[in-house]
Amino acid sequence: MNTAVKLSQQNREFVIDKLRNLFGDRVSTVGSVLEQHGHGESWHPTQPPDAVCFVQSTEEVSQVVALCAEAHMPVIAYGTGTSLEGHLQAVNGGVCIDLGQMDQILEVNNEDLDCRVQAGVTRRQLNQYLRDTGLFFPIDPGADTSIGGMAATRASGTNAVRYGTMRENVLALTVVTASGEIIHTGTRARKSAAGYDLTRLFVGSEGTLGVITEISLRLYGLSETISAAIVSFPDVRSATNATINTIQMGIPVARIELVDQAYMKAINNYSKTDYPELDTLFLEFHGTRDGVAEQIRLFEEISSEFGASDFRWAEKEEDRNQLWRARHDAYYAGLAVSPGSKGYLTDVCVPISKLADCIVQTQQDIASSDLFAPIIGHVGDGNFHLSIFIDPGDDAMLEAALKLDQRLVNRALDMGGTCTGEHGIGMGKLKHMRHEHGDGAIEVMKLIKHALDPLNIMNPGKTVDC
Amino acid sequence: MNTAVKLSQQNREFVIDKLRNLFGDRVSTVGSVLEQHGHGESWHPTQPPDAVCFVQSTEEVSQVVALCAEAHMPVIAYGTGTSLEGHLQAVNGGVCIDLGQMDQILEVNNEDLDCRVQAGVTRRQLNQYLRDTGLFFPIDPGADTSIGGMAATRASGTNAVRYGTMRENVLALTVVTASGEIIHTGTRARKSAAGYDLTRLFVGSEGTLGVITEISLRLYGLSETISAAIVSFPDVRSATNATINTIQMGIPVARIELVDQAYMKAINNYSKTDYPELDTLFLEFHGTRDGVAEQIRLFEEISSEFGASDFRWAEKEEDRNQLWRARHDAYYAGLAVSPGSKGYLTDVCVPISKLADCIVQTQQDIASSDLFAPIIGHVGDGNFHLSIFIDPGDDAMLEAALKLDQRLVNRALDMGGTCTGEHGIGMGKLKHMRHEHGDGAIEVMKLIKHALDPLNIMNPGKTVDC
Repeated sequence: MNTAVKLSQQNREFVIDKLRNLFGDRVSTVGSVLEQHGHGESWHPTQPPDAVCFVQSTEEVSQVVALCAEAHMPVIAYGTGTSLEGHLQAVNGGVCIDLGQMDQILEVNNEDLDCRVQAGVTRRQLNQYLRDTGLFFPIDPGADTSIGGMAATRASGTNAVRYGTMRENVLALTVVTASGEIIHTGTRARKSAAGYDLTRLFVGSEGTLGVITEISLRLYGLSETISAAIVSFPDVRSATNATINTIQMGIPVARIELVDQAYMKAINNYSKTDYPELDTLFLEFHGTRDGVAEQIRLFEEISSEFGASDFRWAEKEEDRNQLWRARHDAYYAGLAVSPGSKGYLTDVCVPISKLADCIVQTQQDIASSDLFAPIIGHVGDGNFHLSIFIDPGDDAMLEAALKLDQRLVNRALDMGGTCTGEHGIGMGKLKHMRHEHGDGAIEVMKLIKHALDPLNIMNPGKTVDC
Repeated sequence: MNTAVKLSQQNREFVIDKLRNLFGDRVSTVGSVLEQHGHGESWHPTQPPDAVCFVQSTEEVSQVVALCAEAHMPVIAYGTGTSLEGHLQAVNGGVCIDLGQMDQILEVNNEDLDCRVQAGVTRRQLNQYLRDTGLFFPIDPGADTSIGGMAATRASGTNAVRYGTMRENVLALTVVTASGEIIHTGTRARKSAAGYDLTRLFVGSEGTLGVITEISLRLYGLSETISAAIVSFPDVRSATNATINTIQMGIPVARIELVDQAYMKAINNYSKTDYPELDTLFLEFHGTRDGVAEQIRLFEEISSEFGASDFRWAEKEEDRNQLWRARHDAYYAGLAVSPGSKGYLTDVCVPISKLADCIVQTQQDIASSDLFAPIIGHVGDGNFHLSIFIDPGDDAMLEAALKLDQRLVNRALDMGGTCTGEHGIGMGKLKHMRHEHGDGAIEVMKLIKHALDPLNIMNPGKTVDC
């Protein structure tokens, strides 16, 4: 399937000339622009594309892809460049389609709790736009990512325990296929039994089957009451067991985030806060006033059983924001511990009954390495992250991080979990795909890839190229 | 793709002989058995397979499919025979794989709120098994269907408004592909960003891409308090508007079912009940005692604004069962209105803001026909059903029903909805697929079908054969 490699320099120049004719100065071959588009936020070395095209409509994406298809030239879709597993590297060169200028919010249907946006709209932009409607879009992967990128990588984040991931919240898509055809998947109906679920097939396909250009999303009404909390536990197993019980009791917690002791120390240092330096849960409850009060009471009962202490509650928006800022600044706090370092970020997700064992064994593994690798997790889903802070250029340290990650993934897979809960495969986790899915399922994925992208021009070298 | 048609009688006999060698008297060619397996519960004429094979394991399914693949013989998977759009008709003959004997519940993981079952387990069997665990499986399409069939048709039903459909509740699958390969999709992790979502691709593929043999499902804790209610409205628009407001307010109603005036009259007559013969909502609330009380209070406030009257509440299990029995017996009540008739059942799903218009316009359309076609709906999802009672053998009546259905579907699609919320495509709704999805998306579905089933042996003539 590696036809793209054979692409001649002449062919590349032909495509770029044609693109310039169509898009003028919205096509760039400037070195710094190519560099910037040749990587995400992971450790993987930059591999720049041959050109970047800043598109403004689905029709323009269609034109670019059709041209690339004719020339067998790779196509890589680019949102905000925040992916974490080497999704954006142009392994065979090609044209990077930057969707950042496709930033129109096309419709908001208040009555139906849905909206339609262009792929380059970011999640904060959308929530800003929704500010006066009483609605919000809950999915929060941390960075201010584009909705298109979030759909393409099946993103989730802190609110997924209550509101689901992009899998559950994308209603419909507009996609440009590998031949440049514009197709529409799904409808605004909440459910359908009408044929293959193409929406769910493109969600999480990481640009390897087509370019997502428009997304219809579910929205939610803002709750009457929102209450945030932070609470300390004697150890990570207690914090995790409190989480497991909360989920099993069916308490509709909106966020339940573990921040381990190592990260809490870093946060206090960086954010000048005075939180107990213990394994900690950050929580948020959404509901009616009485409903939230009841959720809090039930959670306090559960967590007291597991030795919880130092409950701190925040209900006013600014107090909640301050509390969550500490959580969201964790990564920067980690960087400050090892100045000049860069985070190697990985995540796994396991059945919740295995979560405490998985985290404790991972902490033991970290302790026996020389690495600084604090843990943060969307633990209500059984999902947690390792941030391994490494010195760029220290190959031995990178090698040690890769091995720690490998052991983490093996541990999660042995427990019936997945090699990534939300970061995706990109290039970084390709090596785990066969272990997780087995040869038979990988063969089916490859059949689909080949059927929909016979020239292998859509983000080659990623996701299923294993 | 119509290779199966060329299958010779000799070839068919060769396959059946081989099957007899493998499975002995678990292969049947008895006329009545073939007849029984050649239809679901729709009006579509029976088309019997050449043989029925009663399998007992995934490996046996694999053997049957491999044999059929070698001989280019069609394969049709059969659960409980309750599908509603001609999913089971053997349009080119072939082997029907009856999964009814694959009825083992393989594991229940109480802590993780999940289970794994063979495809022939029925939803009532599963809930019976779960009775002492405090857990339940919510999806309730009416009939006591097999879980495999429910996955294959992306079933939903009364509880979907709160708990989702099979799309949201299947965690993982074991599937026998068109070549007889056994593959596994998904894991027990609640979320994953690891590659293409094959689980969601097979869910709803109606046996056209492979045979689902095992299913891992999400389960839910039984609520502390369950309260059911029935309430009357002056007209269908008021009932629907009360529903819309309930959903928009974010009240986590577990069931909200519309039964129209025509059906309420039939129910009173059939079930000897004395409900007001008005457009009616049947509801159920799940939660803590205080939570349910609050939901009820909020719902009463909303529905009073829309002229609701005659609230009747049921909290004890037997009272709730009696109330829901009336709802579930609606179809039989309808049959009793026109003795000897058979129901032509169809469903659509629209954005909830369009629901009142869609139902009112449909009722006007029914009124201007000579048909008895009461409406029942999972209105919280924007999904409703027409039960058109027709005389079997009255071709003019069938023709009129088909036309009414056609207008219903066009109306739903014009409103941004789908041609079927939960019954599926089968053969019956093939004619709407291009209208709903457009040629581009249909082409992608066909590419997937051809890639995964190049011989077109998996339930040919269905779902994407348009």
